[in-house]
Amino acid sequence: VKLSDGVEWGLHSAAVLAGLPPNALRAGKDLAEFHGVSESYLLKHLKAMVKANLLESVPGPNGGFRLARAADTITFLDVVDAVEGSYRSFVCTEIRQRCPIDAPASFAAPCQIHAAMRQAENAYRNALKERTLGHLAAELTAKLPAARQKAAAEWLTERVRFPAARKERKMK
Amino acid sequence: VKLSDGVEWGLHSAAVLAGLPPNALRAGKDLAEFHGVSESYLLKHLKAMVKANLLESVPGPNGGFRLARAADTITFLDVVDAVEGSYRSFVCTEIRQRCPIDAPASFAAPCQIHAAMRQAENAYRNALKERTLGHLAAELTAKLPAARQKAAAEWLTERVRFPAARKERKMK
Repeated sequence: VKLSDGVEWGLHSAAVLAGLPPNALRAGKDLAEFHGVSESYLLKHLKAMVKANLLESVPGPNGGFRLARAADTITFLDVVDAVEGSYRSFVCTEIRQRCPIDAPASFAAPCQIHAAMRQAENAYRNALKERTLGHLAAELTAKLPAARQKAAAEWLTERVRFPAARKERKMK
Repeated sequence: VKLSDGVEWGLHSAAVLAGLPPNALRAGKDLAEFHGVSESYLLKHLKAMVKANLLESVPGPNGGFRLARAADTITFLDVVDAVEGSYRSFVCTEIRQRCPIDAPASFAAPCQIHAAMRQAENAYRNALKERTLGHLAAELTAKLPAARQKAAAEWLTERVRFPAARKERKMK
């Protein structure tokens, strides 16, 4: 029972996108290079996050990705659900109803096993719901060594894209 | 991302075993029939629970399964881990270390993404650790309709096995 690599990749990519200047984009290939992962596989996950309205994608040779809304409003759970599909690890198939007994039974009340598994899953989901990309960006800023942050920022700044600005240049 | 059916089957079977008289056994085929599931597939999961020291298995034609220890000491997490292997849904592959940046970085501090995912997973595991088969048996007794409980008890009592007693009879 494992989440796909995509959850890790999606969260790290979203953390990088959370640091973009307004309106700026980052190319999928730069996100892939920054994290040392397969570009085509990463794109699959980024597209799932676009579909879930967490990211925006701008097409074209100077296109790329950015957050679709404020980092404070995107939770870890949003990313997990976008990449994995809505996460429900325990599937109750109501085997209690298959019991070969004649006595009638009401199954209106939920199965206690189902309820306990669901409660645990909700504890998991609530923990992920409480953390946002905003928290993550703040933590990275607080904890990464300054020299590392500076070098990463330089690497990323060199590769930032502003599609509107480029368009204007082309039209001149 | 789904737990196997085995978690549901294992928990329901363990709940039935929690209601056995001392020393008694229940055959795998009766547990399968009681839950309307495949015997061979259920046996696979019961054996995993034997391996994890949650159940005891007595071999032979009059053999079967029983809890290896008191129901109060067997948690839902024990069953999930036994059936699924130790449950860790998020696997951190440390992609932060693949970053193509020259600045040296210390990775002694855990990745914030890894930490957040682990925290959520611990919330899940702790919720499952707090519930035991003892709780489950008490809840079933409290909530199942009395007629249903009686009929189930009768069905199960007809099929209970006492290997030691049977052995004595054979030796006479």
